[in-house]
Amino acid sequence: MTATVNTSDALARLAAVIESRLPARGGDPDKSYVARLLHKGPDAFLKKIGEEATEVVMAAKDADHGGDRTKIVNEVADLWFHTMVALAHYGFSPGEVIAELERREGTSGIEEKALRKAQAREASND
Amino acid sequence: MTATVNTSDALARLAAVIESRLPARGGDPDKSYVARLLHKGPDAFLKKIGEEATEVVMAAKDADHGGDRTKIVNEVADLWFHTMVALAHYGFSPGEVIAELERREGTSGIEEKALRKAQAREASND
Amino acid sequence: MTATVNTSDALARLAAVIESRLPARGGDPDKSYVARLLHKGPDAFLKKIGEEATEVVMAAKDADHGGDRTKIVNEVADLWFHTMVALAHYGFSPGEVIAELERREGTSGIEEKALRKAQAREASND
Amino acid sequence: MTATVNTSDALARLAAVIESRLPARGGDPDKSYVARLLHKGPDAFLKKIGEEATEVVMAAKDADHGGDRTKIVNEVADLWFHTMVALAHYGFSPGEVIAELERREGTSGIEEKALRKAQAREASND
Repeated sequence: MTATVNTSDALARLAAVIESRLPARGGDPDKSYVARLLHKGPDAFLKKIGEEATEVVMAAKDADHGGDRTKIVNEVADLWFHTMVALAHYGFSPGEVIAELERREGTSGIEEKALRKAQAREASND
Repeated sequence: MTATVNTSDALARLAAVIESRLPARGGDPDKSYVARLLHKGPDAFLKKIGEEATEVVMAAKDADHGGDRTKIVNEVADLWFHTMVALAHYGFSPGEVIAELERREGTSGIEEKALRKAQAREASND
Repeated sequence: MTATVNTSDALARLAAVIESRLPARGGDPDKSYVARLLHKGPDAFLKKIGEEATEVVMAAKDADHGGDRTKIVNEVADLWFHTMVALAHYGFSPGEVIAELERREGTSGIEEKALRKAQAREASND
Repeated sequence: MTATVNTSDALARLAAVIESRLPARGGDPDKSYVARLLHKGPDAFLKKIGEEATEVVMAAKDADHGGDRTKIVNEVADLWFHTMVALAHYGFSPGEVIAELERREGTSGIEEKALRKAQAREASND
């Protein structure tokens, strides 16, 4: 694994492949897993998002207890992949998600607000 | 929103910010939401992954029924953000997730295998 | 813990308490957690279902690795409780869920169908 | 659907059927879906809990937007069923979950504490 991968190109290229599987783009559900998911409609890939999130959690808990940490990367990849299928269906790109993350990072006070909420929650726990 | 955002720089920069909140790096749970999550330990951010995945699904279902589609981008951003907190805790970077996605894209037969599984599943549904 | 608890009475009684917190029944969001969840609307308690399901999974994984098994019972109780809040909102009772489970148990072939699906899925995994 | 179903007998009977599918009890993974899940181990049925929780959420969102409400009962039944498989694996019964719910109901102050937490969280949202 390497930190020098050009993530921008990789995500944009992967998104382009996924988008080419959209029914409106001629994606063939008999030839492509993504085309099949998109053809079946939102419930099919949304269910996968819930399932893959659970698999990330399980892989992380196994790692907490001494298991193979690299499973986490595989499961996060599965989760991100299926969210990208959803993004394609709804007409969005990963670039837009990342722009939103960047916007928040640039907005002073975001972390502070989340922090105050977390503190209030915890205080009321006593 | 824009497709010209340099996603590579953005994700790597965001990961660096998150990593700077690690307890071992001096992250202060009283000053940062991320530091607080990391300080509380895996269950705190893993629970958020399950919660944010559910929020992606709810936003998508609302969009299916005519609701505001842009909520989806916000919820996916929340989900990716909390998976990045988990990645940081376990010593991984988003670049490694994207390298894994790229590796699969480059491995011929990946989609075909997933497809055969989905077809077998569906055939047995009749 | 005891197997002699009258689960029927217990679930019906709990459902009646939850139903008494519905806005239409005068549930006061300033006095009751359930009334507050119901007052905030579906997204509030549906999000909790995703979160509590994740907590069941985490407790189970901890138990797999030697942790305290009784956490599982607590987390399943949380999950069932929040599904009962949802049931109340949509006008259903736990008795209807249990009747559905009973119906399936009585319907010959249910397990067989689920089994054939699982076998086909696994066969295609090779 | 009926409120007169004896939920106690139904849940206890269903739990007995599930327990008879445990590997230690001779459950045959080639003949029973539950035996197969139990034979494959925790990850198999825990993943289903995440997936079924997501399906409850999707059914509820469809109902919010005018869809068929009865799907909710079916999906909650699926979710409870798979949590009962987990309970059997870890040596618990649904009666113990219900006893825990009953214990909380009887413990004055439970709802009040949850309420104070929710109020603090919301106050810090302003």
